[in-house]
Amino acid sequence: MAELFKVLTIEAARSLLSEYLPLKIPGQKVPMLESLDRRLAADVIAFQDVPGFTRSTMDGYAVRARDTYGASEGMPAYLDVCGEIPMGQEPRGGVKAGQCWRIATGGMLPDGADAVVIVEYTEELDRHTIGITRPVAPGDNVVRRGEDISEGTAALPAGHRIRPQDLGLLSSIGVMEVAVVQPVRVGIISTGDELVSPDQNPAPGQVRDINSYTLYGAVQSWGGAPRLYGIVRDNEKDLRETLERCLKENDIALLSGGSSVGTRDVASKVIDSLGKPGVLFHGLSIKPGKPVVGAVVGSKPVFGLPGHPASAMVVFDLLVAPLVQKGSYSANLEEIQLEFPLRAIITRSLHSASGRVDFIRVKLSFCEGRLYAEPVLGKSGLIGTLVKADGLARIPAGKEGVEAGEAVDVKLF
Amino acid sequence: MAELFKVLTIEAARSLLSEYLPLKIPGQKVPMLESLDRRLAADVIAFQDVPGFTRSTMDGYAVRARDTYGASEGMPAYLDVCGEIPMGQEPRGGVKAGQCWRIATGGMLPDGADAVVIVEYTEELDRHTIGITRPVAPGDNVVRRGEDISEGTAALPAGHRIRPQDLGLLSSIGVMEVAVVQPVRVGIISTGDELVSPDQNPAPGQVRDINSYTLYGAVQSWGGAPRLYGIVRDNEKDLRETLERCLKENDIALLSGGSSVGTRDVASKVIDSLGKPGVLFHGLSIKPGKPVVGAVVGSKPVFGLPGHPASAMVVFDLLVAPLVQKGSYSANLEEIQLEFPLRAIITRSLHSASGRVDFIRVKLSFCEGRLYAEPVLGKSGLIGTLVKADGLARIPAGKEGVEAGEAVDVKLF
Repeated sequence: MAELFKVLTIEAARSLLSEYLPLKIPGQKVPMLESLDRRLAADVIAFQDVPGFTRSTMDGYAVRARDTYGASEGMPAYLDVCGEIPMGQEPRGGVKAGQCWRIATGGMLPDGADAVVIVEYTEELDRHTIGITRPVAPGDNVVRRGEDISEGTAALPAGHRIRPQDLGLLSSIGVMEVAVVQPVRVGIISTGDELVSPDQNPAPGQVRDINSYTLYGAVQSWGGAPRLYGIVRDNEKDLRETLERCLKENDIALLSGGSSVGTRDVASKVIDSLGKPGVLFHGLSIKPGKPVVGAVVGSKPVFGLPGHPASAMVVFDLLVAPLVQKGSYSANLEEIQLEFPLRAIITRSLHSASGRVDFIRVKLSFCEGRLYAEPVLGKSGLIGTLVKADGLARIPAGKEGVEAGEAVDVKLF
Repeated sequence: MAELFKVLTIEAARSLLSEYLPLKIPGQKVPMLESLDRRLAADVIAFQDVPGFTRSTMDGYAVRARDTYGASEGMPAYLDVCGEIPMGQEPRGGVKAGQCWRIATGGMLPDGADAVVIVEYTEELDRHTIGITRPVAPGDNVVRRGEDISEGTAALPAGHRIRPQDLGLLSSIGVMEVAVVQPVRVGIISTGDELVSPDQNPAPGQVRDINSYTLYGAVQSWGGAPRLYGIVRDNEKDLRETLERCLKENDIALLSGGSSVGTRDVASKVIDSLGKPGVLFHGLSIKPGKPVVGAVVGSKPVFGLPGHPASAMVVFDLLVAPLVQKGSYSANLEEIQLEFPLRAIITRSLHSASGRVDFIRVKLSFCEGRLYAEPVLGKSGLIGTLVKADGLARIPAGKEGVEAGEAVDVKLF
């Protein structure tokens, strides 16, 4: 089976899968307050200027800037105070030459006024007169109508993930309901004759299923909707039935376990039997995580992840997480580089084969303002090593290992 | 009012508030599958070894390591194959001198075997005999009983936030229900005569409430349970009633708006009237975000956040987020430094007053492998500047600004 040797780089695997992407995920309307972390299905257009009027950003006096030109402490500009602008209301009058209105932060500028003099640069002569001791330019200490958001513009673009400040923006333009993309549905199947469900007591030779639960959490943490299909024994018929149902009910199917060659053969055969194009590759040039089946059935990606928990998680992060998060792989270099945004100094030399990207579980620590990454050594089959680690360091394919003291790129879990 | 001038450093403010912390938040039991991102209320103890038996990590043959010593391609060690160990079952026999069993990844080692020879270093002579071409040491290619997690140890400590791999660990030890800390309840009150709810159309002089929604999202994104108490007009009686109810129903109360001096005085008076110790400080030596009221009523923190959205968010991140996340401020330098984990090159020189920490909204970009932070200029009253930014850069108190090309610490939103 020649395909067994189709070992691809991460980039090649993503590009091969991209021919069948993006995932087609429908939209849905949700109340604005429930839209945090969701992705917009369409641009959000502002139908009003924000603010809807020119506002003061300070406590002071609304003036015509030209009336203050040349003012100084030695020679203040004297202005008549027409009154105080009530918060939340329209001014009761305008500003003519030589006049001003008392105004608080957020107050609406009266007609004729184009700037605010802050209270610290004024002196009160009597209830009706102030002296201004510093000039202001038009626009000083005000936010102009539409300066924050202007009517008719796309306030947020389709595909944007809603952050707390975006809720603020939506509220500022009165958008109480937003169209977001539905969570990507991911079905999770564990395979292996040795596995039992976590609520069972394993007999000798048996272990509890770990990967289903790690993957469930990973899908959730990227904003997807995970669904467990339990444990399937290593037989073709059961696997075909479960995978078929899983593909019907989800946008992505994940198989995990079965890292032995025989089991992978069965999984590949079953995937190929369910639809075109079927299996696209059988391995990634990474460590851990090399044995991975990448496939598409119809338009739905199917991944056969390695059985070792750390390996499964590395492959999930590289190939599955971007799809759960945004339905496609980024060709944008910036986004890709932000996948490993931290730089840390590795505390131990490590070997690595050239031509393969290595991912090292690391524990991070700060010392004198520098970030250090201490490799968590241990077999990739141990869930404990993943739990002890804070993140993953990446050793690029071009390097034959790293020396202690070298800088490496790191992502936090 | 002398307290008006109590402007503290971030560290001093945290330390003053810490006298009344940690928040007393009760625990609750949740199903393991619903525990992602929750914090453990107690240590999770493993009551079983994981794995419960010594397992193979490769496909190969289970052997007594000493039977392979000295083996080479020129002079293989010949062993009798007793049979194949079925996955998920106890071996049907042990390994005596000169014997081995065929074993797959994850299989249980038979009595007497202490290592696995991988299939690549064996040659099959006939169905019952193999030659081993490389020696193994005891423990090679196996995970020993309890090597991943050993019985009686704390598999996860109290206070730990559950990540995807922690769900895997919980499943591996059969923990189907965990005791987690309840979400910190945060009540949010907006004040200001100019504010209207986002579902209303603002009249001239009015603007929609932004901060309630930004803060709602921020509380949610740190794992808290936000609750909105709407808009309170600038009057003492309404504010007292609403704040009293808010404190009764929550663990933390947030007031926002009212950045003018008069409004802050009212808020301070109301807070002081509700219980001891009352207002602790009236400002932080930061920009933006200087005007902030920090208080404790009984054992519950109350914060009067600035009205400008960017200012409110900076103060939220510095003072409120750690409490929502873990009920206290960290004295652990590493944790504090990880609040601003990225290093980026600032693209523009900026002034800053010495003795004050400045937070600059920045847009990040990569160029030739280096991370750049471009300041998003604009008034802190504009929600748009927060929306355009990817994160915040920090200019420490000891510096009088930064030069374009200098490295700064950055946090992502």
